[in-house]
Amino acid sequence: MFDYIINPKVESYIKNLSVEEDPLIKEMEEYARKNDFPIIGREGGRVLHLIAKIKNPELIVEVGSGFGYSAYWFLKALKKGKVVLTDYQEKNIKLARQFLDKGGFRDRAEFRVGDGIKIGKEYKNIDILFLDLEKARYLEAIKELENNLSDDGIVIADNVLFQGKVIFEPENRKSKILREFNSYMFEKFFSVILPVRDGILIACKKS
Amino acid sequence: MFDYIINPKVESYIKNLSVEEDPLIKEMEEYARKNDFPIIGREGGRVLHLIAKIKNPELIVEVGSGFGYSAYWFLKALKKGKVVLTDYQEKNIKLARQFLDKGGFRDRAEFRVGDGIKIGKEYKNIDILFLDLEKARYLEAIKELENNLSDDGIVIADNVLFQGKVIFEPENRKSKILREFNSYMFEKFFSVILPVRDGILIACKKS
Ligand SMILES: C[S@@+](CC[C@H](N)C(=O)[O-])C[C@H]1O[C@@H](n2cnc3c(N)ncnc32)[C@H](O)[C@@H]1O
Ligand SMILES: C[S@@+](CC[C@H](N)C(=O)[O-])C[C@H]1O[C@@H](n2cnc3c(N)ncnc32)[C@H](O)[C@@H]1O
Repeated sequence: MFDYIINPKVESYIKNLSVEEDPLIKEMEEYARKNDFPIIGREGGRVLHLIAKIKNPELIVEVGSGFGYSAYWFLKALKKGKVVLTDYQEKNIKLARQFLDKGGFRDRAEFRVGDGIKIGKEYKNIDILFLDLEKARYLEAIKELENNLSDDGIVIADNVLFQGKVIFEPENRKSKILREFNSYMFEKFFSVILPVRDGILIACKKS
Repeated sequence: MFDYIINPKVESYIKNLSVEEDPLIKEMEEYARKNDFPIIGREGGRVLHLIAKIKNPELIVEVGSGFGYSAYWFLKALKKGKVVLTDYQEKNIKLARQFLDKGGFRDRAEFRVGDGIKIGKEYKNIDILFLDLEKARYLEAIKELENNLSDDGIVIADNVLFQGKVIFEPENRKSKILREFNSYMFEKFFSVILPVRDGILIACKKS
């Protein structure tokens, strides 16, 4: 019991409330399950979607897009604007393109293979910067990219509690970096950590 | 252990990250503690603030303002626009006026004594409707007020997990109404429940 972030009964109550009707969401979740591919998950995806709806951004940059599940939740929320997807692995980006084509978002997405931190630096006025990369590089990612945010740009970072290890195994190497990252985000930005799944941090600029 | 919503160690890790520098926030929290007055709390207040920052609303209506703690978090986020506070009890509204005057928000707030559902109906184009009233009336409140939302208006409701009772004591009378409320919100709106403290539901319109 001690290592839970959220009580699993509470999690499943919340999960059961949302009936998903979009077959592409289900297909992507099925792909993730079969291939053991880490995605932000249904509850996390819904948070991304809600925040994008509320913000109505022009430009979203994802650092670590995988096969496009999180990007699809973002895109479904947008009236205008685009999402830049990045992943080291060409295979993931190819798959993302297929899924997002199928969803009708071919023209609203840019597909980039490579280091998302480096690619992100090419974009100015990022309205939503989404971090979902290798944990060891979270702090580097925000330091490299914070100046590329728009005036009221926000940051969303997944996995900031690292399955609770950030709290229960603070000496773990990745936990240490995530603790540093979280502290940095609360100091430099106005941040909250939502205990949704693996911990989602959302931050806006101070004042 | 079974009735926790969030693991208390996780909660306290998150709490410790945010250092509060505003003396008025601390004063209001101190008032709540001393008088055993139920407020949305630090983490909840920060969520309200963040959402208001992202949304940049013109009009926020609170149903159940107490002595103004949640309204103060909202007001601190606004560039423009105003907050309408409502409470049954004149004493609370008086106190809210004092606190918000002190915070410099005299001209940005309306202070109304009475039934917040009834008062809310006087306002059109509500950008953020905040529900924090008696639990037995949540469903009534949204049904009465949903047509007063602006086109991209959102709803934020506190206490939707009712200390976990919604899950662990589903037969409780208030749990039942909250379960109905939550189901309604997930059907009629696009909703998420954030397991922050007592459960905060945030909803935007579908599609
Ligand atoms: C957790 S998965 C992404 C899941 C995706 N955001 C979702 O929720 O659907 C992380 C992905 O980031 C990629 N990745 C890790 N570090 C990266 C970096 N620095 N730049 C680009 N991609 C990276 C990995 O190849 C992996 O596919
Ligand atoms: C939980 S407290 C509000 C706390 C406040 N929102 C905060 O977080 O600082 C609930 C308040 O709502 C008031 N209340 C309950 N039902 C109401 C209604 N229908 N209309 C107006 N006020 C109501 C109560 O008098 C009480 O002061």
